[in-house]
Amino acid sequence: MKVQVVEDILSANEQLALKNRRLFDEKDVFVLNIMAAPGAGKTSVIESIIEALGGQARVGMVDGDVASTIDADRVARLGVPAVQINTGGACHLDANMIATALPSLSLDEIDLLLVENVGNLICPTGFDLGEHLKVMIASTPEGDDKPYKYPGMFTAVDALLLNKVDLLPLLDFDLDYFRHGVEVLNPGVPFFPLSCKTGEGVPEWTEWLVQRWQAG
Amino acid sequence: MKVQVVEDILSANEQLALKNRRLFDEKDVFVLNIMAAPGAGKTSVIESIIEALGGQARVGMVDGDVASTIDADRVARLGVPAVQINTGGACHLDANMIATALPSLSLDEIDLLLVENVGNLICPTGFDLGEHLKVMIASTPEGDDKPYKYPGMFTAVDALLLNKVDLLPLLDFDLDYFRHGVEVLNPGVPFFPLSCKTGEGVPEWTEWLVQRWQAG
Repeated sequence: MKVQVVEDILSANEQLALKNRRLFDEKDVFVLNIMAAPGAGKTSVIESIIEALGGQARVGMVDGDVASTIDADRVARLGVPAVQINTGGACHLDANMIATALPSLSLDEIDLLLVENVGNLICPTGFDLGEHLKVMIASTPEGDDKPYKYPGMFTAVDALLLNKVDLLPLLDFDLDYFRHGVEVLNPGVPFFPLSCKTGEGVPEWTEWLVQRWQAG
Repeated sequence: MKVQVVEDILSANEQLALKNRRLFDEKDVFVLNIMAAPGAGKTSVIESIIEALGGQARVGMVDGDVASTIDADRVARLGVPAVQINTGGACHLDANMIATALPSLSLDEIDLLLVENVGNLICPTGFDLGEHLKVMIASTPEGDDKPYKYPGMFTAVDALLLNKVDLLPLLDFDLDYFRHGVEVLNPGVPFFPLSCKTGEGVPEWTEWLVQRWQAG
């Protein structure tokens, strides 16, 4: 009986995700689910997307955090409509939270919706939000062994960013070991080493994103 | 009815944690539950404890990870008995996992048991393992806003380490802002800025730990 309940819950999330995705497609909104460990640079990546695409796309943001509005405030200061979801204790966003947040955004005036998930490398992968792309941000100070320890996240994503490459000279980070771990889990996944601080690698990532967005 | 089920589960964990704690006390084993985000340096801190206390205490380790035995292997190479718990998909350790791992360790030959929790700033705080001290490791590259975003973890712990202070000159990390966030949540919590890489600050932390261990 317990297993039955779990299956019902998962299926409820999937049904709501499908409903979200239909709404996004109807409104012609392309949606990213951006996932990472705490402090990997999700908001910095979102800021760099807004800077790079400001002229081409109308961007919106949904921010998930256990507490605070720090990240949504950062993005709102750039003139981008941003909605904060405080999950209380929950360690991930789900499709129902997104559905609840959407009425606070004018989807008719948004081309690209950037969803910043809760900082967590485990649970967010289990919950489809209705997004079109799942993007993971790893960061160099976290170490080169993360694909081996958190395989679910690395397997689930459509693109992988490695942020904070400006710190590489100071760290014991073996890029080949990291990439080998990724390739075993998710062969050929688009991979973008970059630094939101120096801007290195950001154009390659945002150009790929524009192509994926324009391809629908 | 659903709330009832949740309460039963929590209470089951608490009962098992109590049982673990009784066993630890009976065997005179002092237990740390070490929690942090992925890549903050849990294993490096454990290595530095082993190095500092090698002569004074017989150390053991229980390592929780979604997958791999990388961290337990690192510690086992130091000659310390180490048991790996692979949680599969679970984002935290619980008292039952610890109880299941304990028969693999000779508690009679251990004074200090270091439990490395799953890399996650949210869920591990909800599960008492039977430990005597909860220790959190934050790290400077994660940013100075973590107390504001993950208040539960910062509130729950008996000691807070801030690792990777050797990187501070390269980061926009406001130590006063960080400490203010911590003080609001957990006034007076023992705080140890350190670098496992350079060794800076490690003696202050391990001396405090020895005192707490010897005080029981």
